[in-house]
Amino acid sequence: MHQLHTIPSIEDLRATHAAIASFIHRTPVMTCSTIDKMTGAELYFKCENFQKVGAFKMRGAASAALRLSAEQASRGLATHSSGNHAQAVARAAQQLGVPAYIVMPSNAPAIKQAATRGYGAEITFCAPTVEARETALQEVVARTGATFIHPYNDYNVIAGQATAALELLEDTAAKPLQIVMAPVGGGGLMSGTALAVRYTSPGIQVFGAEPKAVDDAWRSLHSGHIASNATTQTIADGLRTNLGEKTFDIIRHHVDEIYTVSEEAIIAAMRLVWERMKIIIEPSCAVPLAAVFSYPDVFRGKRVGLILTGGNVDLGELPW
Amino acid sequence: MHQLHTIPSIEDLRATHAAIASFIHRTPVMTCSTIDKMTGAELYFKCENFQKVGAFKMRGAASAALRLSAEQASRGLATHSSGNHAQAVARAAQQLGVPAYIVMPSNAPAIKQAATRGYGAEITFCAPTVEARETALQEVVARTGATFIHPYNDYNVIAGQATAALELLEDTAAKPLQIVMAPVGGGGLMSGTALAVRYTSPGIQVFGAEPKAVDDAWRSLHSGHIASNATTQTIADGLRTNLGEKTFDIIRHHVDEIYTVSEEAIIAAMRLVWERMKIIIEPSCAVPLAAVFSYPDVFRGKRVGLILTGGNVDLGELPW
Repeated sequence: MHQLHTIPSIEDLRATHAAIASFIHRTPVMTCSTIDKMTGAELYFKCENFQKVGAFKMRGAASAALRLSAEQASRGLATHSSGNHAQAVARAAQQLGVPAYIVMPSNAPAIKQAATRGYGAEITFCAPTVEARETALQEVVARTGATFIHPYNDYNVIAGQATAALELLEDTAAKPLQIVMAPVGGGGLMSGTALAVRYTSPGIQVFGAEPKAVDDAWRSLHSGHIASNATTQTIADGLRTNLGEKTFDIIRHHVDEIYTVSEEAIIAAMRLVWERMKIIIEPSCAVPLAAVFSYPDVFRGKRVGLILTGGNVDLGELPW
Repeated sequence: MHQLHTIPSIEDLRATHAAIASFIHRTPVMTCSTIDKMTGAELYFKCENFQKVGAFKMRGAASAALRLSAEQASRGLATHSSGNHAQAVARAAQQLGVPAYIVMPSNAPAIKQAATRGYGAEITFCAPTVEARETALQEVVARTGATFIHPYNDYNVIAGQATAALELLEDTAAKPLQIVMAPVGGGGLMSGTALAVRYTSPGIQVFGAEPKAVDDAWRSLHSGHIASNATTQTIADGLRTNLGEKTFDIIRHHVDEIYTVSEEAIIAAMRLVWERMKIIIEPSCAVPLAAVFSYPDVFRGKRVGLILTGGNVDLGELPW
């Protein structure tokens, strides 16, 4: 595959999906009659919590890694992340047999450090600030020649994240969805999802969902300019980042609306999925379901696809 | 279907499976490469935690309920249980449009009371002793004419529980299992599983798994007489009961071995499934996986089917 320097086409998305097949699971789409009854909607959950490394991030990391030349790849993959993207880049590098260099804040949870190291990555610790992360990453890249894989603001990554929606749309083709909704953090999944839906199913509405506490995407969509968050005080730890210019450009053209929800609604939706669907999801991916409960008139009677983005949770620190 | 008064035949099991189809989900069989690597075995998890009411008990309750005459059924279904069997009987009655009468100890968790009531059952509370339960049940049956559905010592129930293994064997037919293992409480699932395997796949070994703290089934199998437990101090709350004479008769002839495991091994196996498979399982169904870890030489290199029996857990009281 070639490097993507412009918005991926539907052919790019399909080529990406074929190329990353051995790096990902084709995750199931689940339903839950109890939650359908509670919401009055027909919900289809795309279970990326069952994805390799426990999150959709595997798709984007594989897509970006596979687009490097053999020579580039041999020098390794690098990123800064304390979360799922770190594990995804480490796992992609492991499968390609090349080094991974991950910059992590020194306060990253031990379990995430261990998982990243378990995939064979070299971890560089830095102070827990954005500046320290970026400086440490630049040093790693300068020292190793590794390629930085951005967690979201990269068309190669966006093309990978889009493949989750491609699968969801295929697997619900017999009873086509009317709405597809994803959570919005940096916007990689959101923009990829919007592209996949627009290209293949232009009649389906595309919504984002976001914690009220970090509603930068909602403000960006409604103001036309990338907004930032004054705080990162949300339980949805995957959604604290701001949009990038590439993801925002796609989102502003292809996302119909963004719904914001309270922290209480996120926790209640997360617990409901655990209790009734018997699956483990992160707080971040409870945000779309929280939106279904918070805006019932929008979703009642509709067939709605929700992307459950990941299942990496510290079981020792649950929010209830 | 007719009432079963003798050990169910393979034809009985197949007829049961067809009859209960609208009462149950066909649950998936999951695998986990990480746990396979850790154990050196190839494990196939039959996910009854995704079953209706969150447990395999739905199968046995539906099987027993569907064998009642219309006249019997119209007077209702009754049982005593604070656990999954109560919800299964209540749900079966609801689907048949007949009353359900459930006797519960007064200290049954509020969430289980609510779930049982949610299926439309009438709950009678009693003191938390075996005697009080049985007395209360007799009173309910005398008052209502409802039919008591025993949680395990009933061939109609056993035939229902056997259908989980029938599905597991069908879904792994391309790479046949070498061992099938289920947890042992009262023995309904264990005896049904053993029958299903023996009838369809006589070359497969059938194992039970049990907490060391309540090893009545292990002692029964090795002594030839039904043993009882001096204590019920195990986290595996579904496995505290003793065998019945019907379940023991099947188990002694068709179960090859029972493996006992420590409480620590149960908790570790449960947490591992939550963390790596991203699914919620009860402590009781972590017991077979705990056996795989506790007796590595028995399982290494083998294709092993494990029945994950249920996913009803109080999320506010986790064992870690």
